[in-house]
Amino acid sequence: MHPTPEISLPLAMLIVFGSAKLMAEIFERLNQPGIVGEILAGALIGPSVLGWISPNPTLTALADLGVMFLLFGVGLEVKAAELVKVGGTATIVATAGVIVPFFAGWGLMTYWGAPTPEAIFVGASLVATSVGITASVLSARGLLHEVASKIILAAAVIDDVLGLIVLAVVSSLSRGSINIWEISLTATLASAFTVIVGYWGTRAVSHVAPRVESRLRAGEVQFNMAMILLFVLAVLAMYTGVAAIIGAFLAGMALSESAGPRVRDLSKGVNELLVPFFLAGIGLHLDVSVFKNRSTVTLAIIVLGVAVVTKLVGCGLGAISLGWSNVLKIGLGMVPRGEVGMVVAQIGLSLAVIKQDTYAVVVFMAVASTIVTPLLLKIAFREEATPSGLLESESGAA
Amino acid sequence: MHPTPEISLPLAMLIVFGSAKLMAEIFERLNQPGIVGEILAGALIGPSVLGWISPNPTLTALADLGVMFLLFGVGLEVKAAELVKVGGTATIVATAGVIVPFFAGWGLMTYWGAPTPEAIFVGASLVATSVGITASVLSARGLLHEVASKIILAAAVIDDVLGLIVLAVVSSLSRGSINIWEISLTATLASAFTVIVGYWGTRAVSHVAPRVESRLRAGEVQFNMAMILLFVLAVLAMYTGVAAIIGAFLAGMALSESAGPRVRDLSKGVNELLVPFFLAGIGLHLDVSVFKNRSTVTLAIIVLGVAVVTKLVGCGLGAISLGWSNVLKIGLGMVPRGEVGMVVAQIGLSLAVIKQDTYAVVVFMAVASTIVTPLLLKIAFREEATPSGLLESESGAA
Repeated sequence: MHPTPEISLPLAMLIVFGSAKLMAEIFERLNQPGIVGEILAGALIGPSVLGWISPNPTLTALADLGVMFLLFGVGLEVKAAELVKVGGTATIVATAGVIVPFFAGWGLMTYWGAPTPEAIFVGASLVATSVGITASVLSARGLLHEVASKIILAAAVIDDVLGLIVLAVVSSLSRGSINIWEISLTATLASAFTVIVGYWGTRAVSHVAPRVESRLRAGEVQFNMAMILLFVLAVLAMYTGVAAIIGAFLAGMALSESAGPRVRDLSKGVNELLVPFFLAGIGLHLDVSVFKNRSTVTLAIIVLGVAVVTKLVGCGLGAISLGWSNVLKIGLGMVPRGEVGMVVAQIGLSLAVIKQDTYAVVVFMAVASTIVTPLLLKIAFREEATPSGLLESESGAA
Repeated sequence: MHPTPEISLPLAMLIVFGSAKLMAEIFERLNQPGIVGEILAGALIGPSVLGWISPNPTLTALADLGVMFLLFGVGLEVKAAELVKVGGTATIVATAGVIVPFFAGWGLMTYWGAPTPEAIFVGASLVATSVGITASVLSARGLLHEVASKIILAAAVIDDVLGLIVLAVVSSLSRGSINIWEISLTATLASAFTVIVGYWGTRAVSHVAPRVESRLRAGEVQFNMAMILLFVLAVLAMYTGVAAIIGAFLAGMALSESAGPRVRDLSKGVNELLVPFFLAGIGLHLDVSVFKNRSTVTLAIIVLGVAVVTKLVGCGLGAISLGWSNVLKIGLGMVPRGEVGMVVAQIGLSLAVIKQDTYAVVVFMAVASTIVTPLLLKIAFREEATPSGLLESESGAA
């Protein structure tokens, strides 16, 4: 309640939320995606530029909650049956989108003169798509019901499981031995969790929820039960090895048929407050130290290019049966790497397998790939976009 | 996104939110206030009993945000003009409610054999009402439009300013000298802030908000502007010396006439998610070490009794012109001390003015006074209570 020696909570909230919304407004006026403005707001107020605020555990927690509620909200708008329908294509998209960047990254770094373990780690850091940014763009522009959007979401879930396996293999490789048994167990657990919850979650929830809720007395029962499901599945996801946000997405999807408008409105409120912390949080991690050395700058730009092109090619070609327009949408939708790439690079750094410079390059790639995605998606989804932001703001002001 | 060596965020969310809602449900079934269940859930999962979770910066931040949104939501339901109308009575209630507990606490500790500085600090820790619990009870039971409720809210705001002055005086006393000039400046700043925002906030917002909002393009403009006002006033409140939650309350009140249903629904969502962290957070701070020593137990129970009786008498008598029923409601509504009393005791501890045992007694008083208040308010507001909890749960499940 009283000012701490560090920055106080209300001031931190004001700086992050206020600057994110200000930059979003500026970008919307320039006819650019507001999301890019919110990410750049983080870079601006962060240690790299103005130095008003640094990443800290509280901001990280708000950002993590923000992306969980973002994916929960996206899940609420998606029916599991529709994702299952595109499951075949999504599997090809995800698999090709893992193989192409991994080997391209490995090859590039070898060509650049890096030792093999470092090259493999950079390859691994290019693997995992961070679906938050794309989900945010698709949701804000009312595009979640497109076929391409559904393939992106399904592929992102599969991609997370594949990324987990790649990370497990690479980590044990760098320790000198591969425990096939352990890796198979990890892969099985992770796949079983997503498949079981994805397939049967909706039916189970539609069956059980009304019975439980009708017996409870405390206020806002349906919202409270939804929150508990969200946290339970996020925890289970982490225990089985996949990301908490995948659990959050599956929780939303399980509730997509039974959740009433009240649950949607209340969780939207949390979403609106916290998603700016997720977006600005990405920008906060931008490290301009990468620009001190000319050779590192060159490498950073090449790695970013490889990151974009390899997902575009890998994921896009996986969807070639759906026509070129979908190739572009799906390929670009899978481009953002975000925090997952950073985590891989951090593990590499802690194992002393990758150098500090290379770490900075991966962080740059992770942040920059999230910044370019909304700009590229705007072009790819040109025809279908409805100005839902405007509609929302009008109904909000009414 | 991945498990940390400590407890992961989703698991912490699940434990706190889940246990709070479970205990609320149990208490509602026992015909007791759910709020008490949520506070006790914190005591149960905390270090004192099960030890599942300890207070940490993230949980504290979520609790602080929770009580800010709670007071913001209460402000949204209260018109400033109505508080101004009861301002005279509220001033008497607040003033008497500061003087009586302060001298009673001082006298009690002197009688108990404590040195004068320690006795004065315990007196000061009994001064400030923590309005969160009462606001939560009144809001949950749909009682905010009662005259007694308005007097409680207005008196709580004044009480916060008076508490600030008492703390400033006591702190400088224990350092050996009083800087009258500095204390007058603090008092003037704090009073000026609350009076100016309270009086002219609503008019200023009603005048400015529609013009600004109609020019903005990014989605959910009205909610975003409301959040920025909330954080700005919370920051200003802290700079002028009053609590951030008073700023949050004033922000809500300034918006009470212009905010549309969308802003109310979205901020209610944040409220529903985070208030359990505020309530359980109080319980988390319960320290059972106070029960190891028989004389400390006795003192703790006496101090708790003094805490309840002195606010009941002081605040209640200030409202005697409104009849005995209101005396009871207002007196009991001002009982909770919560985190403010703990902060005073912490300062005393850091200045080596109060002993560890006495600190534990004050913390016990602060937690226990918040637990008994909803139970006592239930009796005081017996006739007026509408079962709004039930109504809400029905509309929620619809």
